[in-house]
Amino acid sequence: MDLTKLLYGGDYNPEQWLAYPEILKEDIECMKQAHINTVTLGVFSWSVLEPEEGDFQFGWLEQIIDDLYENGISVILATPSGARPKWLADRYPEVLRVDEARNRELFGGRHNHCYTSPVYREKVRIINGELSKRFGSHPAVILWHISNEYGGECHCPLCQQAFRKWLEAKYRTIEELNERWCTTFWSHTYQSFEQIESPSSRGESMLHGLTLDWKRFVTDQTADFIREEIAAIREAGSDKPATINLMYNYEGLNYHKFADLIDVVSWDSYPTWHKGEEYLTAVDNGMQHDIMRSIKKKPYLLMESCPSSTNWQGVSKLKRPGIVEAQGLQAVAHGSDSVLYFQIRQSRGASEKFHGAVIDHTGSRETRVFQEVKETGRLLGNMGGLLGASTESEVAVIYDWENRWAVEDAMGPRNKGVCYKETVEKSYRAFRKQGLNVDLIDMEQSLEGYRIVAAPMAYMFRSDFEKKVKAFVEQGGTFVLTYWSGIVDDTDRCFLGATPHGLADVMGFRRKEIDGLYDGETNAMLPTDRAAAVFASRERYSCQRLCELVELTTAVPLAVYGEDFYQGMPAAAFNRFGEGSAYYIAADAEQAFYDDLYRHVVDEAQVERILDCRIPEGVEVNARQTEEAEYVFVQNYNREAVEMDLKDEDYEVVHGKKGTAIPPFGTVVFMRRKSGRA
Amino acid sequence: MDLTKLLYGGDYNPEQWLAYPEILKEDIECMKQAHINTVTLGVFSWSVLEPEEGDFQFGWLEQIIDDLYENGISVILATPSGARPKWLADRYPEVLRVDEARNRELFGGRHNHCYTSPVYREKVRIINGELSKRFGSHPAVILWHISNEYGGECHCPLCQQAFRKWLEAKYRTIEELNERWCTTFWSHTYQSFEQIESPSSRGESMLHGLTLDWKRFVTDQTADFIREEIAAIREAGSDKPATINLMYNYEGLNYHKFADLIDVVSWDSYPTWHKGEEYLTAVDNGMQHDIMRSIKKKPYLLMESCPSSTNWQGVSKLKRPGIVEAQGLQAVAHGSDSVLYFQIRQSRGASEKFHGAVIDHTGSRETRVFQEVKETGRLLGNMGGLLGASTESEVAVIYDWENRWAVEDAMGPRNKGVCYKETVEKSYRAFRKQGLNVDLIDMEQSLEGYRIVAAPMAYMFRSDFEKKVKAFVEQGGTFVLTYWSGIVDDTDRCFLGATPHGLADVMGFRRKEIDGLYDGETNAMLPTDRAAAVFASRERYSCQRLCELVELTTAVPLAVYGEDFYQGMPAAAFNRFGEGSAYYIAADAEQAFYDDLYRHVVDEAQVERILDCRIPEGVEVNARQTEEAEYVFVQNYNREAVEMDLKDEDYEVVHGKKGTAIPPFGTVVFMRRKSGRA
Amino acid sequence: MDLTKLLYGGDYNPEQWLAYPEILKEDIECMKQAHINTVTLGVFSWSVLEPEEGDFQFGWLEQIIDDLYENGISVILATPSGARPKWLADRYPEVLRVDEARNRELFGGRHNHCYTSPVYREKVRIINGELSKRFGSHPAVILWHISNEYGGECHCPLCQQAFRKWLEAKYRTIEELNERWCTTFWSHTYQSFEQIESPSSRGESMLHGLTLDWKRFVTDQTADFIREEIAAIREAGSDKPATINLMYNYEGLNYHKFADLIDVVSWDSYPTWHKGEEYLTAVDNGMQHDIMRSIKKKPYLLMESCPSSTNWQGVSKLKRPGIVEAQGLQAVAHGSDSVLYFQIRQSRGASEKFHGAVIDHTGSRETRVFQEVKETGRLLGNMGGLLGASTESEVAVIYDWENRWAVEDAMGPRNKGVCYKETVEKSYRAFRKQGLNVDLIDMEQSLEGYRIVAAPMAYMFRSDFEKKVKAFVEQGGTFVLTYWSGIVDDTDRCFLGATPHGLADVMGFRRKEIDGLYDGETNAMLPTDRAAAVFASRERYSCQRLCELVELTTAVPLAVYGEDFYQGMPAAAFNRFGEGSAYYIAADAEQAFYDDLYRHVVDEAQVERILDCRIPEGVEVNARQTEEAEYVFVQNYNREAVEMDLKDEDYEVVHGKKGTAIPPFGTVVFMRRKSGRA
Repeated sequence: MDLTKLLYGGDYNPEQWLAYPEILKEDIECMKQAHINTVTLGVFSWSVLEPEEGDFQFGWLEQIIDDLYENGISVILATPSGARPKWLADRYPEVLRVDEARNRELFGGRHNHCYTSPVYREKVRIINGELSKRFGSHPAVILWHISNEYGGECHCPLCQQAFRKWLEAKYRTIEELNERWCTTFWSHTYQSFEQIESPSSRGESMLHGLTLDWKRFVTDQTADFIREEIAAIREAGSDKPATINLMYNYEGLNYHKFADLIDVVSWDSYPTWHKGEEYLTAVDNGMQHDIMRSIKKKPYLLMESCPSSTNWQGVSKLKRPGIVEAQGLQAVAHGSDSVLYFQIRQSRGASEKFHGAVIDHTGSRETRVFQEVKETGRLLGNMGGLLGASTESEVAVIYDWENRWAVEDAMGPRNKGVCYKETVEKSYRAFRKQGLNVDLIDMEQSLEGYRIVAAPMAYMFRSDFEKKVKAFVEQGGTFVLTYWSGIVDDTDRCFLGATPHGLADVMGFRRKEIDGLYDGETNAMLPTDRAAAVFASRERYSCQRLCELVELTTAVPLAVYGEDFYQGMPAAAFNRFGEGSAYYIAADAEQAFYDDLYRHVVDEAQVERILDCRIPEGVEVNARQTEEAEYVFVQNYNREAVEMDLKDEDYEVVHGKKGTAIPPFGTVVFMRRKSGRA
Repeated sequence: MDLTKLLYGGDYNPEQWLAYPEILKEDIECMKQAHINTVTLGVFSWSVLEPEEGDFQFGWLEQIIDDLYENGISVILATPSGARPKWLADRYPEVLRVDEARNRELFGGRHNHCYTSPVYREKVRIINGELSKRFGSHPAVILWHISNEYGGECHCPLCQQAFRKWLEAKYRTIEELNERWCTTFWSHTYQSFEQIESPSSRGESMLHGLTLDWKRFVTDQTADFIREEIAAIREAGSDKPATINLMYNYEGLNYHKFADLIDVVSWDSYPTWHKGEEYLTAVDNGMQHDIMRSIKKKPYLLMESCPSSTNWQGVSKLKRPGIVEAQGLQAVAHGSDSVLYFQIRQSRGASEKFHGAVIDHTGSRETRVFQEVKETGRLLGNMGGLLGASTESEVAVIYDWENRWAVEDAMGPRNKGVCYKETVEKSYRAFRKQGLNVDLIDMEQSLEGYRIVAAPMAYMFRSDFEKKVKAFVEQGGTFVLTYWSGIVDDTDRCFLGATPHGLADVMGFRRKEIDGLYDGETNAMLPTDRAAAVFASRERYSCQRLCELVELTTAVPLAVYGEDFYQGMPAAAFNRFGEGSAYYIAADAEQAFYDDLYRHVVDEAQVERILDCRIPEGVEVNARQTEEAEYVFVQNYNREAVEMDLKDEDYEVVHGKKGTAIPPFGTVVFMRRKSGRA
Repeated sequence: MDLTKLLYGGDYNPEQWLAYPEILKEDIECMKQAHINTVTLGVFSWSVLEPEEGDFQFGWLEQIIDDLYENGISVILATPSGARPKWLADRYPEVLRVDEARNRELFGGRHNHCYTSPVYREKVRIINGELSKRFGSHPAVILWHISNEYGGECHCPLCQQAFRKWLEAKYRTIEELNERWCTTFWSHTYQSFEQIESPSSRGESMLHGLTLDWKRFVTDQTADFIREEIAAIREAGSDKPATINLMYNYEGLNYHKFADLIDVVSWDSYPTWHKGEEYLTAVDNGMQHDIMRSIKKKPYLLMESCPSSTNWQGVSKLKRPGIVEAQGLQAVAHGSDSVLYFQIRQSRGASEKFHGAVIDHTGSRETRVFQEVKETGRLLGNMGGLLGASTESEVAVIYDWENRWAVEDAMGPRNKGVCYKETVEKSYRAFRKQGLNVDLIDMEQSLEGYRIVAAPMAYMFRSDFEKKVKAFVEQGGTFVLTYWSGIVDDTDRCFLGATPHGLADVMGFRRKEIDGLYDGETNAMLPTDRAAAVFASRERYSCQRLCELVELTTAVPLAVYGEDFYQGMPAAAFNRFGEGSAYYIAADAEQAFYDDLYRHVVDEAQVERILDCRIPEGVEVNARQTEEAEYVFVQNYNREAVEMDLKDEDYEVVHGKKGTAIPPFGTVVFMRRKSGRA
């Protein structure tokens, strides 16, 4: 996708204000003053675009787009499928979802149509085509925003039938499906694909192979729907790029499966600043940025963010001064080519009327929020050189959607709280503390180009992951694996031989048992003598939740358990294999253990850090590359200023001040020219 | 309504004991011994009154009423619509409710008939008419008790249709409804009234205009049902007054809408004594008494209360000695002309068999409970002069049902815990600590006659409330407003100009933002120098949950915030407007802040207190007026005796002792004759 | 039932491994090495035994049974009704349950068929018959295992109709039912049995007589189903004994009603070792063992237990070394003639794949679990003399299922947390601390042969319990009763006279009131002077939850309340009646109070203890009797070794060492020969 500018702006719903022309006019003035260059139109506009079936009313939209264009503001145009008009639901009830208990929903809400319904697909195809014909070549329109925040699932008869076909295509014979799902258990053997029903709390909920395939089907069916949405646009003549806006920590869909359908990834980021320590929120949000960027390993877009407090969280806090700038620059630092808000003007009624917006109900430009938005827009205007800059990383953490589904659905040593995301985040955070860009990839992606790969709680090995890992280590890579890894295959069947499956030689140990700890219960991890230098900061580390018991073969212990009957047994280990190295963490260690171990791992793997100074807690460092220069972002998420010993000979400041402390929520952006490399 | 005595007694269900004539006889002896002069009959008696459709069996009831009458005991006669016979539900399933998920209930429980069903209305009309004909002129019968504890809602097709008609009558055109509900949001525009469905967790739950109107409809439909119930009685010839028994803190129905339908308000009071400090329970229960009295601003009835422990609370505690008397006199102090219990005799089986009663399963008159009931009856017998005495108040707190619906349904700065009732109660309690009678009125009621009006969390301004307030202050009234006020109109649409809507000049400030605080999070309110005398007791007050940020125009700050980025910004303010005064509280301040501010407000407004001595914490003071005298109640809800400096020259003791400390849970009632006024 | 050996082994599902003949072969080798002599086959095997309707495939099973038999391993053969094949559910949807909200379940899970369905009964009859014909006389087969873990209920139309018939048979006339259920309350009078519907959250949920009878019906209907299952086996020619496997603390079915249907009781025990103190887990599990044994008052079987961690608890902990042996011997100590595991080989897929098993996914015999199982098998091989040994007890605690249903369903002084089981366990534990075998019997069982009977929270008196108690005490028995006893009859109607019903003279007091205490709230129980010796260990004991207020007539107080308005009133009392003694505990006293009182009670009643030394906390003592000898088990459930002064002249050690401390989780088993008695 070729943008010509870093995008700044957000969602705009002029259809709510058509009766107030003076407001529409004033809005454009506000945008210009706030350095807004892009707005998203058309999200949820179907009932205004097609108030009666087949009666298309696009005039108002054309007027708005023209007005924006005249004022230098680009348009991201949404297809309206995220919410349907009442007439559509009334006339074609099949478009409404059926929940897992098999009750069809009534009209209402949003994001709740059946993805299978031929009628819904047809109606979407028609309106998308009309929009494409009318606006698909308008010079203001720079991007198609397909629907909105895809999610959820439908269990209607049409979806059941599609699921059966999907299964038949995958397994060919019912015998193979029975074998892979282990249906002999509890006499659940199927005799034909026609007998299969989606998981339900009223029926089958404990056949993990079924649940897993159902989730895969839901992703594939959604992908198919997206494909049709985009095809309708293309067939009607528009070749503008397309995106879908993804969501924070959304489990329901394997986002990687959409990578090839869309031209650019975008996502909606709503961190709960000030709920806890801001720097923890920043790490967590940063990981999501990196997950999104890693889907296509390309620059992406921040499609939505909030300039003030949200309205849908249990408690909606105001953002302290500086947060609007900090969160915007965080996005750019991680690889976004945009900072976009939801929304430009606060709606007057219905459920989101108190969601923060650039322009509030009074329309004032004097508000604190407007001023901060304006200032952030000004800054961004100075960073045009970053457009399209890439993010290079030698370190990857495996974050795999399907593994997450499996590990959280399985009934094992802890049925409440295996904490997959939290476990991944510990590895992520430990690498980030070393001042490294980090990719978060899934098991299908290649390991090529990385020097270190960490695979936390890789319960399910799929896509020959173990073979990729073996080759990676053999050829000199550094691999980190944790407890509860390599247990099952891709239909959640246990491997019958030694585990972690296929990596006994690579890792140098065999799993024996795994202990679940109650909430609040802990064990200790005591560094061994040979690892004393690695763990110089502590004599003991705490661990919780899960403790794996293993027998080392060729590996050497780095730490041992301090308590319980497995006191003295290995709690972390190291193995040399081929040209490479393999590390193992046996228990849910506290962050400090990860931090100390990963510092050592990074050193040993000789991965180059972005900055060659210590990164204080709460400071984020990112780098983006263009052909001409490297841009480095240093952000301070502490409530106090921090001093950093940035060697400043070889860089030019883009934002912030040289040689001074970085204030709370402050950012320094500098540039290192690649004179040598050009 | 003209009573001839303070009513003392309670619910009585002889139909459960028809097989035990000796028990029925003994019951009357017990009543007489306990000074009981009134019982409520017929609540839930339908299956005995009409065991088969059209077969009316009133003989047993007549016998009971005659027996009671001969023994000097009056009857409050209930219509039986609170629970229907099995034959009625089986033959006419439409009388059973449909819940919000659109499932029709099975037969069972009570208080769960459809209010719209023509069949149910007809069957109720018939039996009410029969009862009226047979007993409507019986000299024992003094009052009609219409149904029982109206509540709940029905989503059946009949109700849906009635709701659509209600909406059409209100909005005339579907365009107007769309405009008022802001349905453009999420494409929810309606094309006709026929398309509208009631709110549902399976359908539309976030369109606040719809939810609000649905709640209004439920109230109106219930009112219509009540109207028909009473009409049936009137048409059959009885002109005895009618009441409905209301419930503690019941949100589901706007009780003010019933004021004109009934002759007297009554309610059922079940305070959870001994759950926390008794004096806090007393304040809370006292507020409900005042809410009930304020509906008609007339004496009302305590229809139900428990002489022992209940059976339906999670934990049912016994009442300590003295509580039966204290809670009975509290009712009378607040304006009740009755003390009635649920129930006279404990039922033998089914769910309420362990609910406390005057006569327990053993039938003994030696129980502690019976003895306390008897003593309270004796006391009440000495207070006949109070009958019909009025309650005069110069102070009102706005407690508005519709505002409550709106503020609790809206998605805003706190979605769990805006705490409307608790916020109102802080103002109420602060006034009560000054020893004042307090009215709790809604936004439709007049402000005339008050010197101070407090409007806590008046989120929704309706019925031209802002105009009433402006006139009230202009003419010399004192007004107190809190944060989160004047935000939306009566369909929950945000006002587009400055807020609090219409009161910018009255209040002297403009709202800017509002911050939500997590549970446990606090800010501080620091008195300004000019308010040092008002807030002499403290250097800082705590506030929580919500902190509003405002810009003062003409108002002067009384306190500023102590923490966070809005430290130093105004947290309370005062403005002079016209002849009057306006106070503003920007955050959810602790009680002590309200107490100190309201003492000052009362002083400044020169409102006369009932007693001219300090009221210790935990002591309630109330006054009722007859033409001849003022009756003053002083109740001590502390676990220790309190001394009070009551000037005793000009009063006569009705209950309690002059010049001594008031014991725990003890009451002093005295009378000041209005010699001058007669 | 005549066994020829203590059974050792467990559930085995070879049908999951038919494609792996080498695994099936290896399994038998493993069994032999682990001293396994019995396996359970056929649980949930229906879809393999009858893959299409009427197509029976028993060859694989015959092969397995023959192979096992050749290797000296016996078979417990299950009927497959615990889970049905998909074809059965698809062809006959009536076999699927309808839940209380009247929704029919989809296919899935297990233990969820309708017990009434004629089709299901017929299909089960057919396959049971076929199994009986084919395997019912096979020398390997020693026991029929009927279905699996019966439980749950169905509300389908067939069940509704059966319930009505059941009620009609019980009550004869609808008038009698109305009278017993007190349906006049809330106008719920029935006019015919046809009108009755089972309890439902959507309909009737508060008519306790209905709920109680529904639970009785569910038990009876399940019993009828079991009866038919066994009849099918018998009719087809097998006379091998039959059992059903019961569950821990399962409330849904009154297990006593199955006593006469089956030849031997068996149950599935999954204690949550290491969740809290192990010795508390042991007491709790021990009580369940004694409940199971008391159903038939004969040796029973431990049918399932886990050799490692389970997979279905919230957190699944590994068992510390020694626990496998300890829990196995605990079963035998309490009267089990078996130690059986679920399961022999861990399944590969579906929900139980991580449930601990003798053989894990790797098939290794080197695992810690396998080694412990093997060692326990070896020990058991040395204890053959115990086979069929009886358990004699002079002490019984009343644990009554129907009383539990009633007390937990009633709405009374505490609706959350009356804690029936916990209350029973306090009495149980106090007796066990005296080193006594304890029976747990219900109100229908005879009191003959006991010297002490304790009836904790005997809310509902049924089966003339009060008469049995009166005769028991009159003739010299010692009886202990607690608060909240003797309140209602067997349809949950309150007794109208003095309570505890029928025992006023026996107990020497009358109940007056009962106070509910909030969680965390306590009162104190202070020993009276005359009871100082009994309660020598403390000056005050704590009590919580419920405090009953009584008036003593002939009884003398042993303790009085220390707080609240009932301070000084009796909190425990003693009464002499006839030749016997009656003790009363008025409040939910802490364990120490029970311990001190019951030591005294046991002394006074001159009950002989198994050992004449003090039993340290955490040590379990049990005795079993054969004609030749008494076997005594002493188990230490503390985490430290304990010293016990066991007089060792007259015993022979069967397991453990004489004269040494008992290690943590260790067991000593010794034998005292009955030379004198033979």
